[in-house]
Amino acid sequence: MTFELFYWPGLQGRGEFVRLAFEATATPYVEIVRGDSPGQGLDALLHAMDDPRCIDPPYAPPFLRVGDELIGQTANILAYLGPLLGLVGESPRARRWVNQLQLTLADLVAEVHDGHHPIASRLYYSNQRAEARKRTADLIDYRLPKFFEYFERVLAHNPHPGGWLSEGAMSYADLSLFQVIEGLYYAFPRAMTGFATAFPRCRAVRDAVAREPRIAAYLKSSRRIAFNTTGIFRYYRELDRASPF
Amino acid sequence: MTFELFYWPGLQGRGEFVRLAFEATATPYVEIVRGDSPGQGLDALLHAMDDPRCIDPPYAPPFLRVGDELIGQTANILAYLGPLLGLVGESPRARRWVNQLQLTLADLVAEVHDGHHPIASRLYYSNQRAEARKRTADLIDYRLPKFFEYFERVLAHNPHPGGWLSEGAMSYADLSLFQVIEGLYYAFPRAMTGFATAFPRCRAVRDAVAREPRIAAYLKSSRRIAFNTTGIFRYYRELDRASPF
Repeated sequence: MTFELFYWPGLQGRGEFVRLAFEATATPYVEIVRGDSPGQGLDALLHAMDDPRCIDPPYAPPFLRVGDELIGQTANILAYLGPLLGLVGESPRARRWVNQLQLTLADLVAEVHDGHHPIASRLYYSNQRAEARKRTADLIDYRLPKFFEYFERVLAHNPHPGGWLSEGAMSYADLSLFQVIEGLYYAFPRAMTGFATAFPRCRAVRDAVAREPRIAAYLKSSRRIAFNTTGIFRYYRELDRASPF
Repeated sequence: MTFELFYWPGLQGRGEFVRLAFEATATPYVEIVRGDSPGQGLDALLHAMDDPRCIDPPYAPPFLRVGDELIGQTANILAYLGPLLGLVGESPRARRWVNQLQLTLADLVAEVHDGHHPIASRLYYSNQRAEARKRTADLIDYRLPKFFEYFERVLAHNPHPGGWLSEGAMSYADLSLFQVIEGLYYAFPRAMTGFATAFPRCRAVRDAVAREPRIAAYLKSSRRIAFNTTGIFRYYRELDRASPF
């Protein structure tokens, strides 16, 4: 089984949540857009999305090609990969729970994106800077605390030892929580100053994931694209501010 | 097995996607917030969310209680109910595909919500009216066409007869597509004028769902809350406008 990942070039974006699942488990995968063989590159992504013979077209990247099946939507891809890669518990209940956590993280990711693009994704940030300042203020003052109080509570109430979100082992939701926290440190260094003190269990998940040998190696490799201002998490100095935490 | 649905009172909101699954299949369910027995009402919802003994707390309504399990996130609830209620195909591939479609519909729903609340969910619409006008213009001019061109294409490419999104039978994604289209007709009557002509297959799904005897009966019953300006789909005359379709 070959896993072919299709995602936009040059940014981590939502593709990164899928990459982390592969990297954490040393699972071979092909990044179609980064290859230059026939059937690879950006054209291959656009072709796969627009192929009129495709009966299961994705709405947007990231999507995975496995045989003749295209699997889109980040949480859907992870719900598929989780059991195959050992990144979720065995029971149906554990799988529902980790999917639920992933969907809540996806909501947070969408809110972070809309912080710099509150009016229109297709327009430049510079066209919506005033609105972005208002929305990001609300994100930092109200939304981030609400989301992280929730994840902190989930971690505190997990009866299994280990400090993970679900049961006693790292799941793909932990990988995604790591990625969201990393992204927020990049985008809002000032707001995140007190994060580790306010949300120690969340911070501990971030640290534990970063210490996983395969993840640590990945983060140092050229496969890890650096955060930049074309992704979801963007550093614009004028949007960063002191946070209530 | 008793299905207990927890959702805010007085609005359809995201709870409606779950209600439609129950109603379409004549599955008994208890609306906790609408009851006045012990353990029911709004207090019961707040209590269930804040119960410190809960190991799988939902971030937000809607959520379902089944035995001692709480299942949150609309798409996660439907991925759970779909197989139990016969609202998704048998194969893992069909289930992934319908989940993917549901998540794309969830993205659209979030964008519609942010049309009237582009700056902050916690503030009134009247505090973000100017920004709402800009964001809704983009929604109507660019986002709705992009989403419905996608669903129209999915319907056109489905090799099974019947006119449904997946395989040859109505799935929970069809119910959700119905709900989104209904909501848009309520919120944007002017923009939706040409919808049936521009997106005939989507419109046909809406009509087919509305004609299902159980859904038709539900829509006429007191259980169906009317659309109103506290839900996701809101009619504000100043936000409606001519659309490109």
